[in-house]
Amino acid sequence: MDFSISEKMQTILEMINEFVDKELIPLETEYLTKDRGSESFEKAIKDKQKMVKQMELWAPNHPEDLGGMGLNNLEHGLVSEALGRCTLGHLAFGCQAPDAGNIEILHKYGTDEQKAEYLAPLVAGDIRSCFSMTEPNMPGSNPVLLETTAVKEGNDYVINGHKWFTSSADGAKFAIVMAETNPEVDSPYLKASMIIVPLDTPGFSLVRNIPVMGHAGGGYFSHGEVTYNSCRVPQSNLLGPEGHGFVIAQDRLGPGRIHHCMRWIGICNRAFEMMCQRAHERMIAPGKNLASKQIIQSWIAECAAAIQGARLMVLHAAWMIDKLGTKEARVEISTIKFTVANTLQKVLDTALQIHGGLGMTDDTILASLWSHERAARIYDGADEVHKVSVAKQVLKRYGYSK
Amino acid sequence: MDFSISEKMQTILEMINEFVDKELIPLETEYLTKDRGSESFEKAIKDKQKMVKQMELWAPNHPEDLGGMGLNNLEHGLVSEALGRCTLGHLAFGCQAPDAGNIEILHKYGTDEQKAEYLAPLVAGDIRSCFSMTEPNMPGSNPVLLETTAVKEGNDYVINGHKWFTSSADGAKFAIVMAETNPEVDSPYLKASMIIVPLDTPGFSLVRNIPVMGHAGGGYFSHGEVTYNSCRVPQSNLLGPEGHGFVIAQDRLGPGRIHHCMRWIGICNRAFEMMCQRAHERMIAPGKNLASKQIIQSWIAECAAAIQGARLMVLHAAWMIDKLGTKEARVEISTIKFTVANTLQKVLDTALQIHGGLGMTDDTILASLWSHERAARIYDGADEVHKVSVAKQVLKRYGYSK
Amino acid sequence: MDFSISEKMQTILEMINEFVDKELIPLETEYLTKDRGSESFEKAIKDKQKMVKQMELWAPNHPEDLGGMGLNNLEHGLVSEALGRCTLGHLAFGCQAPDAGNIEILHKYGTDEQKAEYLAPLVAGDIRSCFSMTEPNMPGSNPVLLETTAVKEGNDYVINGHKWFTSSADGAKFAIVMAETNPEVDSPYLKASMIIVPLDTPGFSLVRNIPVMGHAGGGYFSHGEVTYNSCRVPQSNLLGPEGHGFVIAQDRLGPGRIHHCMRWIGICNRAFEMMCQRAHERMIAPGKNLASKQIIQSWIAECAAAIQGARLMVLHAAWMIDKLGTKEARVEISTIKFTVANTLQKVLDTALQIHGGLGMTDDTILASLWSHERAARIYDGADEVHKVSVAKQVLKRYGYSK
Amino acid sequence: MDFSISEKMQTILEMINEFVDKELIPLETEYLTKDRGSESFEKAIKDKQKMVKQMELWAPNHPEDLGGMGLNNLEHGLVSEALGRCTLGHLAFGCQAPDAGNIEILHKYGTDEQKAEYLAPLVAGDIRSCFSMTEPNMPGSNPVLLETTAVKEGNDYVINGHKWFTSSADGAKFAIVMAETNPEVDSPYLKASMIIVPLDTPGFSLVRNIPVMGHAGGGYFSHGEVTYNSCRVPQSNLLGPEGHGFVIAQDRLGPGRIHHCMRWIGICNRAFEMMCQRAHERMIAPGKNLASKQIIQSWIAECAAAIQGARLMVLHAAWMIDKLGTKEARVEISTIKFTVANTLQKVLDTALQIHGGLGMTDDTILASLWSHERAARIYDGADEVHKVSVAKQVLKRYGYSK
Repeated sequence: MDFSISEKMQTILEMINEFVDKELIPLETEYLTKDRGSESFEKAIKDKQKMVKQMELWAPNHPEDLGGMGLNNLEHGLVSEALGRCTLGHLAFGCQAPDAGNIEILHKYGTDEQKAEYLAPLVAGDIRSCFSMTEPNMPGSNPVLLETTAVKEGNDYVINGHKWFTSSADGAKFAIVMAETNPEVDSPYLKASMIIVPLDTPGFSLVRNIPVMGHAGGGYFSHGEVTYNSCRVPQSNLLGPEGHGFVIAQDRLGPGRIHHCMRWIGICNRAFEMMCQRAHERMIAPGKNLASKQIIQSWIAECAAAIQGARLMVLHAAWMIDKLGTKEARVEISTIKFTVANTLQKVLDTALQIHGGLGMTDDTILASLWSHERAARIYDGADEVHKVSVAKQVLKRYGYSK
Repeated sequence: MDFSISEKMQTILEMINEFVDKELIPLETEYLTKDRGSESFEKAIKDKQKMVKQMELWAPNHPEDLGGMGLNNLEHGLVSEALGRCTLGHLAFGCQAPDAGNIEILHKYGTDEQKAEYLAPLVAGDIRSCFSMTEPNMPGSNPVLLETTAVKEGNDYVINGHKWFTSSADGAKFAIVMAETNPEVDSPYLKASMIIVPLDTPGFSLVRNIPVMGHAGGGYFSHGEVTYNSCRVPQSNLLGPEGHGFVIAQDRLGPGRIHHCMRWIGICNRAFEMMCQRAHERMIAPGKNLASKQIIQSWIAECAAAIQGARLMVLHAAWMIDKLGTKEARVEISTIKFTVANTLQKVLDTALQIHGGLGMTDDTILASLWSHERAARIYDGADEVHKVSVAKQVLKRYGYSK
Repeated sequence: MDFSISEKMQTILEMINEFVDKELIPLETEYLTKDRGSESFEKAIKDKQKMVKQMELWAPNHPEDLGGMGLNNLEHGLVSEALGRCTLGHLAFGCQAPDAGNIEILHKYGTDEQKAEYLAPLVAGDIRSCFSMTEPNMPGSNPVLLETTAVKEGNDYVINGHKWFTSSADGAKFAIVMAETNPEVDSPYLKASMIIVPLDTPGFSLVRNIPVMGHAGGGYFSHGEVTYNSCRVPQSNLLGPEGHGFVIAQDRLGPGRIHHCMRWIGICNRAFEMMCQRAHERMIAPGKNLASKQIIQSWIAECAAAIQGARLMVLHAAWMIDKLGTKEARVEISTIKFTVANTLQKVLDTALQIHGGLGMTDDTILASLWSHERAARIYDGADEVHKVSVAKQVLKRYGYSK
Repeated sequence: MDFSISEKMQTILEMINEFVDKELIPLETEYLTKDRGSESFEKAIKDKQKMVKQMELWAPNHPEDLGGMGLNNLEHGLVSEALGRCTLGHLAFGCQAPDAGNIEILHKYGTDEQKAEYLAPLVAGDIRSCFSMTEPNMPGSNPVLLETTAVKEGNDYVINGHKWFTSSADGAKFAIVMAETNPEVDSPYLKASMIIVPLDTPGFSLVRNIPVMGHAGGGYFSHGEVTYNSCRVPQSNLLGPEGHGFVIAQDRLGPGRIHHCMRWIGICNRAFEMMCQRAHERMIAPGKNLASKQIIQSWIAECAAAIQGARLMVLHAAWMIDKLGTKEARVEISTIKFTVANTLQKVLDTALQIHGGLGMTDDTILASLWSHERAARIYDGADEVHKVSVAKQVLKRYGYSK
């Protein structure tokens, strides 16, 4: 075992940390609580993206032949941690969800035509995309339950369905839509397919950017509720083999999980720095700061310990994916989901508490993180779903079958 | 011991519960995430207040001679629980903070002139008020540290200072301001006074409604950052004896705590109903709902237990105040603060989790409660402040002195 | 609502508290870690029991016509709390489990002959009894699963079975045995009966006092593993109607739960006093005691709050049983089980931690409580069993059926 | 970063795991709850030690020139984890506390004569030793407070003092005693020295094996309360420079912490296996086992996650010590102490709960672990001491000084 970070990665991380501190965090304060999705914000981000490309740090997780840096999961995990310290980090470096996942799918399953039309501009950051799977009437805990259908007519698929949390649909060029194409198949895992739907296709409608924690957001920072009403796309828009939608989804799960979990660790690091800083600066009596109080000290220690444990677990899971593949790392990938999401909530809760009334205001980023990152324990499988999944896999070794 | 509720109170509570369900909860959904503080909202609330007055349920906590119902703390605690189920409850019934507390102060310490000018229209709901104590640079954990000063000049006080979380300042007629009037006194508890400041006094400025959890709010639903720049009011605006600001503040603490804690219990009840309803309705597989899952069941039981314990603790504290006075109930009053605030957060967290993605949206009240009620663990003394306070009082019996 | 304690009860509680402090706690230290069940211990307890009878405080929970004090559940709950401060309390006052429960059963369901032979000397404290239900191969979470059978032959029942946690079997005069008498009945709740088995009946065997947390114990303080090998008793030993074993068990559940939960609250009170005392006395630096440290203070406050909430919940449940009966109080009776058991563990954990190394030793009672009272979360229904039960009952209001 | 385990270590660990399963765990059940410290047990252990030596796995953590395997901290951490699965593991392999720590001290600071007389037979397992630092009247949280003194007279030290938790004193050949030798020095860290005291020295007295959780134990498995009454040893028994007792103690801290924490992880692994096995085997209804219940599943997942995080944290800390030294790893060494001790308690609690009544009995090892390993959160610095220590070190980066 060797916990050291390669010199190459150390250099990259230093560059990123500096950029995040100097270029992105100031921008975050200016825009995030005011004009998410505004034109001036879009321009500001574009400028930063240009700088990142010039630094040759663009798309760290994507293959070199696509113009990315080709980092493996463990390396990109470290990058994701550094970027996670700012809510604009991943967007500025061209590795934001859901585009990152869509790029993976297109790279692995796309036809040459699909790659030319969608993959190239997506990696370049010229367009954005969205991923349209979750349905309001169907439980996320059971993703194979879908009401959206794609029926063949002539050379087309005709898609009908109602989706929500199609994040970043607002302003996106296309969606990858999960729809039932093969209702006749027995296995619930082989009924659905992924299909590319350009968002200017007639029948597609962005019903609303869902107000989330008081904000509908806009542009990249939004969660779309969308409908597909006899939305017709050519069958050549199918991604991979028909009926393999869940197989493909499963496949991209590992890297996505590392990305998110390390992003959360990055947020934890940010919140931890803020709580220490605040504890040090806040005077509670002449000559006495918050940091001198034992209760505050115990919280800081507990957060430090929780972050350290969670961080090592994610890096270990990333290493397993790199070495043994997503399937072998299944227990680890589920375990980090609920562990890091809960660590994140605990650390944010503590940071906010240490900030007192200030923590409730938008004068710091903490209030926004507290409300919006609550979703971490829900999306991509709620805590309880992953716990049951981990247990069932562990119990198999003892004879469990179901 | 007798845990039964009197017939009088049972009748009152039934009427309130029905009103809250029929008249207020529908209004809440319509306004709270959209137009807080808008004109149409103000009008809608006024209409409801009129109905409440006609039902003779107005101002349940205020003395009968002021036009209230004269309920004691235990009785009003039960009312506050019923009203707490809706974020508009207390406002509609004329017992909302900070006016409720200000009314108590004016009633107990106001001169006849002060009562005529400020108390009467306040109880009637014709004007609103605010309470201006917290300062951005001073810790809430040590309220006797104040930078705001009131210096005598002629017949006036000249007030200078910077306050925030002067809640509901937007649209209020006057503030009760805590300011240092007697810096020469030794005891830190006898340096400050409460002074009435009409908000049209030159030198007063509402700098901003502080954006809190993404919202600046407006009108009653806002938290003001305000400044007093050589703000001049007559000395007849002093409330009670000079230097007794903290004595008065201490005095009104008990009833205010019962009010808030039972309001939180009311929110808990609402969230608990929502989680049960959702668990029952949400299908996770054909013929199987969330409520059938053991993890969900254990959460529901844990929430039920937590609410029950917290509720009885508050009612017991209210009974102690009614019977023995605020001072004798000091340990209980501190204990319920951190206990109920944490129960509230736990119950909201569970309710939101059971709602999944829907819980993050503003399609239910939960997201708003999750973000805004996070303040419960901070204002009026953070968890940790009350814990230390409880322990020190308990330890006195063992010889502790400090 | 009225939380005051009647003058009658105040007098009783003062007498008990004094007796516990002066007569029982000193005895506890002497015997409990050394000679549980020894002859000299038996004699010492007999002496104390004589004193209690002279004080006319014997059998507080049992009917006056049986020679008890006839307290209701709420009143006896307060007594149980006072007695719980010492592990010898209930035994010294003639209201210890399992005899207390057996007395209830005999009183309600016993024939005149059964009462004469078993009830009278049991209430008088002249003999002891045990309750033989739990089986090693059957889950406590599903009590209706039983392997023990009682088959009619002539005028007798012939009993065969293997039981454990037949507590206090060592030295008892008789057992009340739960055995399947009616396998042909459909309802699993109507298959078993309670039958009195004198322990000198041939075929009965006390296999061992089960070593629990390192101790097999002895006499009253023991948990028997017992077998019934063609153990023959007259059918007149049946208690209540045949097949009604679980109905009777259910019936006695409420009072037993109050008894245990208030006993645990008594232990909490004892541990809480010890932690405060220790925090006050333990110097950690010249002039500085543990009590001056914020972390210790926060623990003390958290324990105080937890005990207060749990205590009120049990008293409220007792009041409900007294007023509405066991059935109506079912949710409350289940809720207090897991709530108080967990509060107990938390408080013991804290008290032990504050005692440091001393807490691990048998120089205080804490180590013994830590290890042996761990059972509180298991017997009479484990935490998880009661949580599921509470949830299912709550969810019925929302339409849940199963 | 590389989380793989070297082939050499894989081979060693396989051998150890097999030995623990086949030779030690059966022995554990036989002796630990009955005859700790008996002659037949001593003999049985000696036999196992002989086998270990033949396998060339003796003293894995000790230098090769002393007859050990010379593993570094990370490697020995993995060994300690494997051995920790059985309470006899470390003793059978010659790396048990407190001898392991004493060997480190003697190796680093002993004179040639001291090494010949004490070190050689200690490493060989021919004698045992103890470490005599903790005092009943002095807080473990402040180790520099000592009442024991060693005064020079002629060529001797004359030692007077009262110690407890001098573990394994019963049957040991010598103690390393911490005593104040230099009261005149200013720094509290430079007042005490370590001195070798053979236990047959007149004036030394083993007052008692302290009863801990109901057991006084015996031999190696005991905790001595001892007194030094004018106990006279030659000054040549001093270890290292006079006054450097705490410097030396600090130095041996890192490896000892890894040893204990990985031993606890080993216990966690054992308890985790037991809980899964039990969940799988325990039928709660015909055809339904405990493992099929969601609450049990969520516990298993939470334990798996907690163990994984804690384990990686310890291995990382071991790696830091190996690479950068104890001083640089100070935060990590404190962090793992409270993290792993609490993980241990949580996992044991869950395992016991899943075993139900059986978990309370000595029919499994869990009851013994539950009671005795409670000490993990106390010795070598209680949770709260380490939390404060971690926080203060972290806060130094933000300017904290005290």
